[in-house]
Amino acid sequence: MRVPPKRGAIIQRLRLEQVKIYRHNVTVHWGDTDPAKIVFYPNYFEWFDQSTRLYFDSVGLDWDSLVRKYGIVGLPIVEAKARFLAPCKFRDEIVVESRIGKWNDKTFEVSHAVVNGGVRAVEGYEIRVWAQRKPDEPDRLKAIPIPAEIRSAFE
Amino acid sequence: MRVPPKRGAIIQRLRLEQVKIYRHNVTVHWGDTDPAKIVFYPNYFEWFDQSTRLYFDSVGLDWDSLVRKYGIVGLPIVEAKARFLAPCKFRDEIVVESRIGKWNDKTFEVSHAVVNGGVRAVEGYEIRVWAQRKPDEPDRLKAIPIPAEIRSAFE
Amino acid sequence: MRVPPKRGAIIQRLRLEQVKIYRHNVTVHWGDTDPAKIVFYPNYFEWFDQSTRLYFDSVGLDWDSLVRKYGIVGLPIVEAKARFLAPCKFRDEIVVESRIGKWNDKTFEVSHAVVNGGVRAVEGYEIRVWAQRKPDEPDRLKAIPIPAEIRSAFE
Amino acid sequence: MRVPPKRGAIIQRLRLEQVKIYRHNVTVHWGDTDPAKIVFYPNYFEWFDQSTRLYFDSVGLDWDSLVRKYGIVGLPIVEAKARFLAPCKFRDEIVVESRIGKWNDKTFEVSHAVVNGGVRAVEGYEIRVWAQRKPDEPDRLKAIPIPAEIRSAFE
Repeated sequence: MRVPPKRGAIIQRLRLEQVKIYRHNVTVHWGDTDPAKIVFYPNYFEWFDQSTRLYFDSVGLDWDSLVRKYGIVGLPIVEAKARFLAPCKFRDEIVVESRIGKWNDKTFEVSHAVVNGGVRAVEGYEIRVWAQRKPDEPDRLKAIPIPAEIRSAFE
Repeated sequence: MRVPPKRGAIIQRLRLEQVKIYRHNVTVHWGDTDPAKIVFYPNYFEWFDQSTRLYFDSVGLDWDSLVRKYGIVGLPIVEAKARFLAPCKFRDEIVVESRIGKWNDKTFEVSHAVVNGGVRAVEGYEIRVWAQRKPDEPDRLKAIPIPAEIRSAFE
Repeated sequence: MRVPPKRGAIIQRLRLEQVKIYRHNVTVHWGDTDPAKIVFYPNYFEWFDQSTRLYFDSVGLDWDSLVRKYGIVGLPIVEAKARFLAPCKFRDEIVVESRIGKWNDKTFEVSHAVVNGGVRAVEGYEIRVWAQRKPDEPDRLKAIPIPAEIRSAFE
Repeated sequence: MRVPPKRGAIIQRLRLEQVKIYRHNVTVHWGDTDPAKIVFYPNYFEWFDQSTRLYFDSVGLDWDSLVRKYGIVGLPIVEAKARFLAPCKFRDEIVVESRIGKWNDKTFEVSHAVVNGGVRAVEGYEIRVWAQRKPDEPDRLKAIPIPAEIRSAFE
């Protein structure tokens, strides 16, 4: 992924090869494609969202348990981005490769790459926040520090 | 709509012209269409669902109020059907015409017709149930009689 | 599936156990569910559509080949119906079981049953038509008889 | 929107107040929301895509005409991003405000802001490319310069 310079150091420190990766297999169905015969792009974000949840499941951190144990509200999305490098088509068997891209104090980034028959078709990320409801304003959220054991579950 | 003979009498008794109708305007967007350049059919059911809710809103029976006042769980879908008579395409401005098709004791049918530039493109219905959670098994529903004032709100 | 009496004879003649069945495995993702925490019903029709295509693939009749070989326009949907018997939820691993329910001269019915952990959650069908474009009006379709070899591919 | 410094100068030169804006009204329907009772985020990108097309329509540049007149393949997406500032809920009447954010030689950026009852709920952008099919490789695209009259249509 095109990494902005300011994050290069951090990414290096993470030594990506030590971060667990999740591979989410997706079949491109007819209804996922548009009159141009390629995937309608919002679907990629739906697959990103799926993969992030399955990724957490795969390291033993399913979201329902996190809600119960830490009182968080799930892992709300803060930002999402994708770059579209090559189109995917009906019947393509693609893989969404997801990994933690960066831990911040109260947010984290999950990097996603869509690989289609060996070709990198899409790359992007989601930033999500670790947050609880404000006691006095339950409609609003308050970001709180991510516990260390959450981070270590991905190593 | 193609009405099965057995229901003909009931439909007549309703005197359809006395039932309020809701017209839900929908623009067909690019992402609603498939490589055949026509609407991908599950979208019609999404528009049916939208129209039923707006229909209830339009007679003063928004679902949140119904849940609070009657202790029901919303208006769960029991059955849905559509017949596809003519395709709709990108940029078409269609109208979903919704009306109560039939009241049963504990369920009701909403008839939907999609009209596209004067052409009847799709016709179908949804059957929904008036139900509460079972006190001893909150995961299960119990259908209960629809109050008379609900029916009369559509006349 | 609840089979209307009038079709009983035909279904019997088919001897269902001789018709090939396709099982389409689907994971219910977060985005497939609604605020009632159950699958938003139009998704079931999307899964029906997926399963019909995969079913044809599984017997060697992928739609692209059919279009090339027979000059048909795909297999347009004529009618779709579903009955919702039990809700499906986030994380459920469901199976859409699809089989030919009935062959007509120019149309056919694919029966679908959604099985969720041994429970029959949804049952429905799609009716699709074997059709070519009208030579003089390429925007309109003309239904034509289904070749015998298509039917036999499912036996 | 959080504008990276490197683009600040260009944005200024555009004098945004002179660029036409399109306001795309969207009703948040039940099926657009998830078990957290807020909009499932990929929907925002679907609304971005809708708004970009309607925006072009609104200045007289519908995509079908562009394809015919300039031989381009539509306006393929190259990159999309969104930041989620406040949740939108069932029944919210939102507005997607779209405008040209930046013209490049062969690509352009459409900025989108989702305004919900006066609150800025989402902001993002799409980058799209002006491209033709390669004569010798019709499956591949070749970006070409955007004609001046396209730019001026938005002023």
